[in-house]
Amino acid sequence: MSPADLALTSGVRRGERRAIAKAITLLESTRPDHRERADGLLNALLAETGKALRIGISGVPGVGKSTFIEALGLDLIAKGHRVAVLTVDPSSTISGGSILGDKTRMEKLSVHDAAYIRPSPSSGTLGGVAEKTREAMLVCEAAGYDVVIVETVGVGQSETAVANMTDMFVLLQLPNAGDDLQAIKKGVMELADLVVINKADIDPDAAMRAQATITSALRVFSFHGKAGHWTPQVMQMSALKSQGIDEFWQRVTQFKDQRQSSGEFEARRKSQALSWMWDLIHARLQSDFKRHPSVHDALPHTLRDVADARIAPSAAARALLDLFENR
Amino acid sequence: MSPADLALTSGVRRGERRAIAKAITLLESTRPDHRERADGLLNALLAETGKALRIGISGVPGVGKSTFIEALGLDLIAKGHRVAVLTVDPSSTISGGSILGDKTRMEKLSVHDAAYIRPSPSSGTLGGVAEKTREAMLVCEAAGYDVVIVETVGVGQSETAVANMTDMFVLLQLPNAGDDLQAIKKGVMELADLVVINKADIDPDAAMRAQATITSALRVFSFHGKAGHWTPQVMQMSALKSQGIDEFWQRVTQFKDQRQSSGEFEARRKSQALSWMWDLIHARLQSDFKRHPSVHDALPHTLRDVADARIAPSAAARALLDLFENR
Repeated sequence: MSPADLALTSGVRRGERRAIAKAITLLESTRPDHRERADGLLNALLAETGKALRIGISGVPGVGKSTFIEALGLDLIAKGHRVAVLTVDPSSTISGGSILGDKTRMEKLSVHDAAYIRPSPSSGTLGGVAEKTREAMLVCEAAGYDVVIVETVGVGQSETAVANMTDMFVLLQLPNAGDDLQAIKKGVMELADLVVINKADIDPDAAMRAQATITSALRVFSFHGKAGHWTPQVMQMSALKSQGIDEFWQRVTQFKDQRQSSGEFEARRKSQALSWMWDLIHARLQSDFKRHPSVHDALPHTLRDVADARIAPSAAARALLDLFENR
Repeated sequence: MSPADLALTSGVRRGERRAIAKAITLLESTRPDHRERADGLLNALLAETGKALRIGISGVPGVGKSTFIEALGLDLIAKGHRVAVLTVDPSSTISGGSILGDKTRMEKLSVHDAAYIRPSPSSGTLGGVAEKTREAMLVCEAAGYDVVIVETVGVGQSETAVANMTDMFVLLQLPNAGDDLQAIKKGVMELADLVVINKADIDPDAAMRAQATITSALRVFSFHGKAGHWTPQVMQMSALKSQGIDEFWQRVTQFKDQRQSSGEFEARRKSQALSWMWDLIHARLQSDFKRHPSVHDALPHTLRDVADARIAPSAAARALLDLFENR
């Protein structure tokens, strides 16, 4: 490792904001020499990582994620924690802009010494963005942040990506979720360890109905009753009035304690690390395949032929693989 | 194509049972020369495929799948249909034996001229078994079977595999499913286009409760109310007494008509064909990667290091990819 990178590593360890920002910028770079330095940096920091509680938070735009995260962050800082907030924003990869990444959304939290807020990387595939966020999480942990919040919006596959990199996945819902069942997306509910009905004060009756509906939905689809297993929970909150923040943190702590004593906490971390490695390998193998000149040329035509049933999918696969292997 | 394979192709087209069996055995072979012949055969038959209605049927052992499929098959044959029954049995790949593949389970159907029953291939990964079954399905279609039933058990990922190769996915449940919510597996319910509560006559009250519970569970998790979209349905049946078979077929026909007129039927077929092709490509790329001598040697150690957080997953991925590319 170069003297400059050694200095960068020490700076991150000491929690210096400039060093953290520089390290994350380095690992977001697509330049091969930067990538090599980033790998060296990550491995050097690895012993200091893994000590934070990683919380994923999702919800549709308008559900109040920023307000909630700011209220929670300030509360945690008052309790002595150090809080990092990262985002996985799939829209930023399309538009270049970000619907989540604006620091000015959390004005009080962003200026706080014990908080570090970093917007979503704004280029690459969702897989690429998720990878950078996972690596940024390690840097924040090495810098001493003991709570890392990873925020995302309820669109596309980003929720699965965030659930796969965090210890606990929280879904924010609006109080009308009980009336408007379409608001409950297939699949996402199954990721949730905790569902928070935010803005409950706006319509307390609707919030109660939402809590009942979602509780019963979760009960149908979860293996409840298994000893030592966490049953997904539903609670109400009004983040704007800072109501429910304490209860939220109690539930998070309860979740963490239960999973740690059952061994599931560590098991999830290990399996996430292995999946992460395989995801990267598979993504690279697939992109190498698609970029191979002969495959690249044949692909558009082959895809049409398969879709229109002019060639069997298995025969098409083998023909493309033969091109890839230059046979 | 060799004269022998041309004869085989014609035999399949004429619906000769020996030719069908021989063709499926050919495509189940792992010999490279057989594989090449099987690809030729499949492409030659392709124009005759795709005309059958493909129905996936799943349920835990004991739910009565064989009895149901036999009653349904005989009923369909009486109506003038020709019925093929294939199985995807993940257990057969482990034990070599098959919990589903025994022809003697459907004694009356198996001896019928208008029925063709083929057990699950008994070796390979689930992906491999699923691929062979998809190809066998094409052979059966070319042989003139206009209803193809693909049966599986409610374990592992086999249900997803079967849902991905069929037009409609049917889940069989026991009447106590309403009382024992754990019987409703996460994820599987989301695949179901139709849930059938079998053996309803044994406990009519429990069957009614199961129907109500599952209906409400499906409603929470489906985008109901969208114009032109099929809402997953729940019905009761007693296959042993042949009660409900007519209603079942009415619902299947209704599903097919609705999806065909909305265009979703064709769209699902096209997307299944493309996914099938990509699945095969990805599986091959991954197995080539793992079998690469340097990767193979380094992998056990790397996996331990990643799981125990001695090396960052991203750095491990890049180190293995470098080995693969001989750098």
